Amino acid sequence: MDAVRRYPVENIPIITLTTDFGNKDPLSAIMKGTIFSINPQAMIVDLTHEISKYNVREAALVIGMSYHEFPSRSIHIVVTDPGVGSSRRPILVAIEDYYFIGPDNGVFSMIYNENERCKVFHLTAEHYFRRDRSATFHGRDIFAPVAAWLSKGIASDNFGEEITDFMKLRFPSPSMPTRTALEGEVLYIDTFGNAITNIKAEDLKTLQAQKPDVSPRFMVKGKEIAFKQYYSQVEDRGLYALINSMNYLELFVYRGHASREFGITVGDPMGVLLT
Amino acid sequence: MDAVRRYPVENIPIITLTTDFGNKDPLSAIMKGTIFSINPQAMIVDLTHEISKYNVREAALVIGMSYHEFPSRSIHIVVTDPGVGSSRRPILVAIEDYYFIGPDNGVFSMIYNENERCKVFHLTAEHYFRRDRSATFHGRDIFAPVAAWLSKGIASDNFGEEITDFMKLRFPSPSMPTRTALEGEVLYIDTFGNAITNIKAEDLKTLQAQKPDVSPRFMVKGKEIAFKQYYSQVEDRGLYALINSMNYLELFVYRGHASREFGITVGDPMGVLLT
Amino acid sequence: MDAVRRYPVENIPIITLTTDFGNKDPLSAIMKGTIFSINPQAMIVDLTHEISKYNVREAALVIGMSYHEFPSRSIHIVVTDPGVGSSRRPILVAIEDYYFIGPDNGVFSMIYNENERCKVFHLTAEHYFRRDRSATFHGRDIFAPVAAWLSKGIASDNFGEEITDFMKLRFPSPSMPTRTALEGEVLYIDTFGNAITNIKAEDLKTLQAQKPDVSPRFMVKGKEIAFKQYYSQVEDRGLYALINSMNYLELFVYRGHASREFGITVGDPMGVLLT
Repeated sequence: MDAVRRYPVENIPIITLTTDFGNKDPLSAIMKGTIFSINPQAMIVDLTHEISKYNVREAALVIGMSYHEFPSRSIHIVVTDPGVGSSRRPILVAIEDYYFIGPDNGVFSMIYNENERCKVFHLTAEHYFRRDRSATFHGRDIFAPVAAWLSKGIASDNFGEEITDFMKLRFPSPSMPTRTALEGEVLYIDTFGNAITNIKAEDLKTLQAQKPDVSPRFMVKGKEIAFKQYYSQVEDRGLYALINSMNYLELFVYRGHASREFGITVGDPMGVLLT
Repeated sequence: MDAVRRYPVENIPIITLTTDFGNKDPLSAIMKGTIFSINPQAMIVDLTHEISKYNVREAALVIGMSYHEFPSRSIHIVVTDPGVGSSRRPILVAIEDYYFIGPDNGVFSMIYNENERCKVFHLTAEHYFRRDRSATFHGRDIFAPVAAWLSKGIASDNFGEEITDFMKLRFPSPSMPTRTALEGEVLYIDTFGNAITNIKAEDLKTLQAQKPDVSPRFMVKGKEIAFKQYYSQVEDRGLYALINSMNYLELFVYRGHASREFGITVGDPMGVLLT
Repeated sequence: MDAVRRYPVENIPIITLTTDFGNKDPLSAIMKGTIFSINPQAMIVDLTHEISKYNVREAALVIGMSYHEFPSRSIHIVVTDPGVGSSRRPILVAIEDYYFIGPDNGVFSMIYNENERCKVFHLTAEHYFRRDRSATFHGRDIFAPVAAWLSKGIASDNFGEEITDFMKLRFPSPSMPTRTALEGEVLYIDTFGNAITNIKAEDLKTLQAQKPDVSPRFMVKGKEIAFKQYYSQVEDRGLYALINSMNYLELFVYRGHASREFGITVGDPMGVLLT
């Protein structure tokens, strides 16, 4: 297609893949084959293929915590898609610096929350899809080809009509039941067993501003835990809190596994008190 | 080597890797290092490194179901090779659009089955191999270097003599014991627990042509199961069948794991009846 | 930065990643995003992300056994870093053909052992780091950006002062308690259950030279085992020894799992006798 503008190699957008396909089956490789068939110069990065099966919320969190760490104009494909083949729509989300491609099942909810100006397109331009389309693998048939064409410079609005009734999952925000209390919950257990909560560094600052002289107390499961700056600042195997590299309040056990050792799971409440 | 023709970047063939090395040990990375040492512009895609250990049949299936999803001229390396170092031959298989490199242990049987014109070369041109060769890691010592040289434009017949007595594993084909019955079996359990059978969409069409007015009945383990178009077309956790994205008849549980929940394993029979 | 010398594509050094991050969380992908943000032409290879959590010795072994299999000038990032955020220093190690970037916690001990001329730099040039730096993820904040700038041609000594008091872990060397006995131990269990010892092919040659006419006897857990050239040279499921592709003496079970089937673990002694 001569009409397509080709970027010089170094300007080719990165395409990332986030799926629940695991690493055994060749599904993500087949998506890559599809992308390279359309754009041989594509740059593809696996974000993860180990999203818990069918867990749209987890996929939404993982892409929400990661997308901004990639170069501007990166294209993020997310496929956790139990509704594939049904009437759920395939979509393209465009924000100022990034693109997202996947099913309209709420998997981009954190993107919508964090970016006031989202353009969401219902992918309908079938000439950009795979010729033979299945009802079970839109990662290969729709999302990968659209990402590949987008990476070659096709503009977003060529892929379908803009929509506004896209699906949004509610993610719990921390609340302040009183002026001096912040209540949040655990969002994600990471590979080290750290429990990442939905309380961000800014939330702590807002709370602290209420009583600048009082040290905040961190409460988990009815017990107070100490706040640290980094993991190896402690020597025992107790439960501690810190602000992690993504600016979330996180519970950890140094050289341990907070989730297993203290029975912490997604949804557990986390409190911060100024008393 | 100035005599080697260099492709412009976008024409460099993709090299894929399919192994039973797992993702912990640095074995596949070492193969990549070897390839990049010979062809710094190589494009390498991991197809999978989680083939069940020593399971040549499974590797044969996975490459057989995937190879055609890559750009023309892609080079597929497959290393499930318990016989490495013995007299089993290292081979290069060339079909019209693809190349395959690996041991002559049957791992390319599905390629032979599906492609009438296969050229198979016994890899003997040692000047294309690693200088120091081990008897335990031909992925690094023979397959990766040959793939790298092939990706630089060296023609297939430079790597060794053509052979015709290559090894072929028998894969069970579906049979029609009567005009109105099709008998197949489960070939592979995928990451979602779906059971992929050896019955293809064409087989169903052939059967259906016998009695166009009768709806086929799908029988597994003595029970009849319903046929669907896509996964979320059902709401319960029953066992259903559909034609998957690779055109195979597949058994599934929506948001579940058919293999675990219904005790289905590789080799289990699957029947389709027109009665 | 126009002042930075750009390599032609094929000369861009490879950057490899070795971490204990696992393959689920997006941590290694975020490091890649960081690298591509600085050097869009970077070539990145995952060496492994499945180092046992916090296991600096294992990471040291894996990188020590692999680094030389990559093209000259490759940059190896290793992040097994429980001390991140503390006073442990981030370092860059330069040897004749390779670079290494990671924490000064002993993870490069095998590099120091094998290379007499190592230059080790304490990474302090903050203008090459991520602008917002966390105390918990130096892989993203320091190691990835430094690797990216290095891959663009910035010279090693721009990143900080050379140091000589870097940390070195002691790895057990095989010993010769008598002229005719060699004592080593198991260093690593690989994905096939093979037990890789610290006895190298050269060590066996040195021993053999003492009594050229006597066949060496290989002793594990009080039993003698036979020496083979390659795995499929045996047909039973016994325990055997061979020299593996990295020139280490290795214990194996053909089509089996030596570690599980014979209870062999890291640290187990291995003897070779000329009697």
